[in-house]
Amino acid sequence: MMTGKFIAFEGGEGTGKSTQAKLLAEYLHGRGIACRLTREPGGTEGAEAIRELLLHPPGEGWGPRAEALLFAAARSDHVEKLIRPAVQSGEWVISDRYLDSSRAYQGGAGGIGDDNVLALHDIGSDGLKPDLTILIDVPPQQVTSRLALRDGDNSDAIGGRSADYHADVTAAFREIAAKEPARFSIVNGEGSVDDVQSRVKAAIAPLFGELA
Amino acid sequence: MMTGKFIAFEGGEGTGKSTQAKLLAEYLHGRGIACRLTREPGGTEGAEAIRELLLHPPGEGWGPRAEALLFAAARSDHVEKLIRPAVQSGEWVISDRYLDSSRAYQGGAGGIGDDNVLALHDIGSDGLKPDLTILIDVPPQQVTSRLALRDGDNSDAIGGRSADYHADVTAAFREIAAKEPARFSIVNGEGSVDDVQSRVKAAIAPLFGELA
Repeated sequence: MMTGKFIAFEGGEGTGKSTQAKLLAEYLHGRGIACRLTREPGGTEGAEAIRELLLHPPGEGWGPRAEALLFAAARSDHVEKLIRPAVQSGEWVISDRYLDSSRAYQGGAGGIGDDNVLALHDIGSDGLKPDLTILIDVPPQQVTSRLALRDGDNSDAIGGRSADYHADVTAAFREIAAKEPARFSIVNGEGSVDDVQSRVKAAIAPLFGELA
Repeated sequence: MMTGKFIAFEGGEGTGKSTQAKLLAEYLHGRGIACRLTREPGGTEGAEAIRELLLHPPGEGWGPRAEALLFAAARSDHVEKLIRPAVQSGEWVISDRYLDSSRAYQGGAGGIGDDNVLALHDIGSDGLKPDLTILIDVPPQQVTSRLALRDGDNSDAIGGRSADYHADVTAAFREIAAKEPARFSIVNGEGSVDDVQSRVKAAIAPLFGELA
């Protein structure tokens, strides 16, 4: 049986990656490809419950260590119950965020270190990496002005951070992508939604080649 | 400033360790020692929320990897917000379960391996170990008959397991204690509550020696 593909979208807040993940799922459906759109943290009942704890921490909020462990626990459930079974049954899985978000946020800017985030992923999910990771890259100054226009989404524990934090996150994603160029496609997130979607389609084209 | 002591009670279900932890806390209070009685998973607002997810899993239940990560996340919050600050301020902390429960349940009988449980504890809590760990040891056949008499407590995801499982857990605790004899005091849990308490008092006596 032919296995599916696993594609993750990564990038900071306000880069448009959720929109692009959704558009890619619709495009694949339109081509007759069975496809699951999912997100992190979350994607399964268990992982969505952990997401709630992450976004609305009880008590004084999580330290960076507990936070990294919770993200890894949510990912473990997501991989075991959704991503692996779907890909093994031939479906394509498109995830809005995955491992590299933990590396950029909890590992880089957040502080527990890339090696520790990767160790948690080995223990939790046997180190599963996507077939392709699309990094939507937008200059940090633009991210800050896009987020200033957005309502509501800055009130939770992940969204409401400083401009310096977003610049650190952008830099962390670029650094991670530079270490594994074969797994990453860096897509320029500037311009209209359609412009960016054309670039995403070009980035995933090689995966169709493998199907033919 | 004089730092306090950190004592953990360990053992399988039905060994009487929660009762003994409580009695020890009362005994220490009676001797004028500032003392916090706590438990795992739990002990802080964040860790108690994770406890809820562990005992009442949403969806199909947690796999052993996600479960181990959730225990480590709860412990990280417990150590950071309660155990370390209390001990540093001179209090004694008595915890009903701690790291070695994860080693026995998720590492041994549960299946992810002792090395992985210890790696999670290093990342989550800088590997903090108790000054003294009291293992209440009761032969597995007796545990099974004690638990058969208990109501209610077998309905959750941790309690409702087979007799073989309890025998595996007892063996796992004994094996862990054998590796670190200096940190462990194995207390025979057979006999009356008073009998066992006398043994617990004898086990902690050396800690008073260090205070003098």
